[in-house]
Amino acid sequence: MPRYALRIEYDGAPFAGWQRQVDHPSVQGAVEAALARIEPGSHTIAAAGRTDAGVHAIAQVAHCDLTREWGTFRLSEALNYHLKPLPVAITACVRVAEDWHARFSANERRYLFRVMSRRAPVTLDRGRVWHVRPKLDIEAMRAGAQHLIGMHDFTTFRSTICQAASPIKTLDAIEISEHESAMGPEIHFRLRARSFLHNQVRSIVGTLERVGAGSWHPDEVRAALNARDRAACGPVCPPHGLYLAGVSYPQDPFAAQD
Amino acid sequence: MPRYALRIEYDGAPFAGWQRQVDHPSVQGAVEAALARIEPGSHTIAAAGRTDAGVHAIAQVAHCDLTREWGTFRLSEALNYHLKPLPVAITACVRVAEDWHARFSANERRYLFRVMSRRAPVTLDRGRVWHVRPKLDIEAMRAGAQHLIGMHDFTTFRSTICQAASPIKTLDAIEISEHESAMGPEIHFRLRARSFLHNQVRSIVGTLERVGAGSWHPDEVRAALNARDRAACGPVCPPHGLYLAGVSYPQDPFAAQD
Repeated sequence: MPRYALRIEYDGAPFAGWQRQVDHPSVQGAVEAALARIEPGSHTIAAAGRTDAGVHAIAQVAHCDLTREWGTFRLSEALNYHLKPLPVAITACVRVAEDWHARFSANERRYLFRVMSRRAPVTLDRGRVWHVRPKLDIEAMRAGAQHLIGMHDFTTFRSTICQAASPIKTLDAIEISEHESAMGPEIHFRLRARSFLHNQVRSIVGTLERVGAGSWHPDEVRAALNARDRAACGPVCPPHGLYLAGVSYPQDPFAAQD
Repeated sequence: MPRYALRIEYDGAPFAGWQRQVDHPSVQGAVEAALARIEPGSHTIAAAGRTDAGVHAIAQVAHCDLTREWGTFRLSEALNYHLKPLPVAITACVRVAEDWHARFSANERRYLFRVMSRRAPVTLDRGRVWHVRPKLDIEAMRAGAQHLIGMHDFTTFRSTICQAASPIKTLDAIEISEHESAMGPEIHFRLRARSFLHNQVRSIVGTLERVGAGSWHPDEVRAALNARDRAACGPVCPPHGLYLAGVSYPQDPFAAQD
């Protein structure tokens, strides 16, 4: 069966997460339902990142197997038509080899976490950024983040319901930058790793926010990491500031289309 | 009575526009209701730009008169508290002279219009950008925009219900740029003038989009302007891409607070 890779953008707000569930709307379920409109029957798609409830994606990647040979432009147009009015869009679509796998072939995931630090409530970016009131010290957060780079046991920074076999992961980068959006200044956290544990990004950003606000010394991040104890983590931040920003593969399947 | 200048950010979607109306929610009505919660009685505030239904503001400016002397921090916190859960926020508040007027003292208004040009539907920025499917030629739009800079009779580019005494306005700038947002590429139109006619920005951007899509030659913008006929205008674009981005005064009242 021909296999197609899909790049998918979505607003996570109305969904119980990526993963299909019986009683709750999911992004996976939405895309599979759109596939069923173009090729009747049941479909099961696999994605690079199983985002949690409320987490957004700028560039999730999934693959699907179809019986017909589809032109990729026509396929993405048809899926976008059937996804309406849900806030889910296929932004790229390519034919891939039948042994290519959106999840297992991926060698890097990239997440973006957007923070707006100000007194006033958020209006235009409500549901798109995490609103924090303290002014955050970027340099202190960068110093705290340095302790997390590299291969570590991230038990402190993963959900107690995380199903990964091992808490050991290699975090390649945490870039923290001030970003001027059309709406005003934000702080962007960009994290890169081959793979992440459940709630790892939100646990790390929530902890670094405490450092930025001055409640934690940057070195306390190292102590928390070394504790290998979930109770040593800072507060987990909310999902609506988090975006799956991109997924890399040994060869970019979308290179020709971009 | 002490007078206060307020800088106001809002999502225009739930409102019938800035201006107070009897039967429809308005931003003016929302701010006046919040004022009535802190100083009972009726309030009437004046704003620099009377934005239309659905138009957003990053930095609207209004003024209010109160009987008590308020600390400006406390005043903005109290108004933000009473504005909840509406998507309206006071982002700055200063005491001004009693003859200072948010509308009549203003000497420049700045508008931003955000366009996302791509095939796929918009998800994360839905309601925040105008989604157009043609790829737009930036240079052609800039060439078309040049015909509109300076003092002209803008009859073609104003609503038939515009109440301004004269259609003659001086447009100081139309800057068109490619902008990389966290969600992907956008095109930003930034317009500056002492004041604008009703629907002028949306009429101009809608016309320039036709130039960018190749339907109009850039010189047809000059012909449309010279026609001084509303029927010569291109399609008026939707309100949800438009933002009142800023207002200038001979002396910036918020300078000390930023």
